[in-house]
Amino acid sequence: MRIDLWLIGIGTGNPEHVTLEAQRALREAALILVPQKGPDKSDLAVLRHRIIADAGATAPVQEFDYPTRDPSLPYKDRVRAWHDEIACRWQDAIAKAKPDGPVALLVWGDPSLYDSTLRIASRLDPTPTLRVLPGITALNALTAAHAIPFNTLAGAVTVTTGRRLRDHGWPEGAETVAVMLDGQCSFQALDRDDLIIWWGAYLGMAEQILDHGPLDLTGPRIVAARAQARADHGWIMDTYLLRPKGLT
Amino acid sequence: MRIDLWLIGIGTGNPEHVTLEAQRALREAALILVPQKGPDKSDLAVLRHRIIADAGATAPVQEFDYPTRDPSLPYKDRVRAWHDEIACRWQDAIAKAKPDGPVALLVWGDPSLYDSTLRIASRLDPTPTLRVLPGITALNALTAAHAIPFNTLAGAVTVTTGRRLRDHGWPEGAETVAVMLDGQCSFQALDRDDLIIWWGAYLGMAEQILDHGPLDLTGPRIVAARAQARADHGWIMDTYLLRPKGLT
Ligand SMILES: C[S@@+](CC[C@H](N)C(=O)[O-])C[C@H]1O[C@@H](n2cnc3c(N)ncnc32)[C@H](O)[C@@H]1O
Ligand SMILES: C[S@@+](CC[C@H](N)C(=O)[O-])C[C@H]1O[C@@H](n2cnc3c(N)ncnc32)[C@H](O)[C@@H]1O
Repeated sequence: MRIDLWLIGIGTGNPEHVTLEAQRALREAALILVPQKGPDKSDLAVLRHRIIADAGATAPVQEFDYPTRDPSLPYKDRVRAWHDEIACRWQDAIAKAKPDGPVALLVWGDPSLYDSTLRIASRLDPTPTLRVLPGITALNALTAAHAIPFNTLAGAVTVTTGRRLRDHGWPEGAETVAVMLDGQCSFQALDRDDLIIWWGAYLGMAEQILDHGPLDLTGPRIVAARAQARADHGWIMDTYLLRPKGLT
Repeated sequence: MRIDLWLIGIGTGNPEHVTLEAQRALREAALILVPQKGPDKSDLAVLRHRIIADAGATAPVQEFDYPTRDPSLPYKDRVRAWHDEIACRWQDAIAKAKPDGPVALLVWGDPSLYDSTLRIASRLDPTPTLRVLPGITALNALTAAHAIPFNTLAGAVTVTTGRRLRDHGWPEGAETVAVMLDGQCSFQALDRDDLIIWWGAYLGMAEQILDHGPLDLTGPRIVAARAQARADHGWIMDTYLLRPKGLT
């Protein structure tokens, strides 16, 4: 059975960041797969169901849990084994539902940005016919919330992870650095005193928190606010932009 | 008079890439400013007016032309003088319309990505109260159209311009490079034989063209297709991603 699989970017927490294309696809799908995923599954599950309802979708909605990762494997092997396992779960969910049309899968933010869905989809057998619907990313939400440009005038931006920032420091020649997937406030590892940080957590959601300023003053405030918010909510998602002072 | 200025990201050509938030803002605005801008003003003007109509907006719509840039100035000065001039035109348009509510300005793609609108807005006097609504970018549209990840697994991405790629070559340490604002197929200046390119022009539009493959084979094909398409349509907008073979 050949599957039409639609990966639908839903934005990062604001149900109004959903596109018209995503809404239409949700209405046209024969089956909607909803990952139970993310730091707080229940808060985010409410949002996903609201997005489906707002779109006027009528297809059956099938939730599936994400497996846990095997901590005994090295990082990349662990991620690959995890992708294999998730692919099996999709396969099962689809086999069980026997949809007679496209299968829609809700993806956080944009399906292309630090997301495993495309890699998992390529493991399905037979390979599905893929359609990717772009979504508003956490970086779009961050720069919008702060009303700042992503790049300096005609300048480059390095998009990277907390781990890479810790391991490699400031990327050679970068004018702006955007950091995602950072559970450890890795900006603390940077050995520079000329940076401005624009930080955002729970972007697009009611809980949204923003802070910005010189990294030396603002960094400790962010570390404290992040720990507090994480304790209060039980989970956090955050991202930030770094740029040397004076660059515009 | 204090102005509420809403910068509304509208995506890069597909009217269904507009968000629900953008549609609502267009309905709530008291004045809608529509730049006459971009390589083909008339094709893109049709799209902008369609987006306004689809949203059900009823506010007056004011078009304004972008001035031409002074070629005698050095690059950054030229851009700054041009921003000053555009700011004056907005100021005039707003003063003439005397809106009794928020002013909405349509911005191509996402207002933060290689766009001058935020810099121009900061020149208005008095400084407006800004609200930025994120939009689907050309890079989101590119990766969606090709159904590819933006980044390698936990890897970094450098977002840059054609000019920088020509002047500085492959960014030190980059795993993926995303290139915008490239009128010259600057990938031709790269001295590497291990790259894959994913290219897209008129992304999201009826005219959309895609190509991808090893840069050595695909590059010349893109140069030819780009020249042909540009001649046919009178304008082109394109962007691409580069990644070494084998990196996933
Ligand atoms: C697995 S990645 C997914 C990114 C997503 N595909 C996108 O387009 O934004 C998760 C990371 O995105 C960022 N993120 C996602 N949602 C966020 C939000 N609402 N607020 C702040 N950061 C967010 C955080 O850096 C988080 O570690
Ligand atoms: C001035 S920048 C504006 C980018 C826009 N703010 C965004 O979010 O995509 C214009 C550049 O964006 C890219 N671009 C914009 N629209 C595009 C489209 N429909 N197809 C391909 N490239 C596009 C091209 O690289 C072009 O040179």
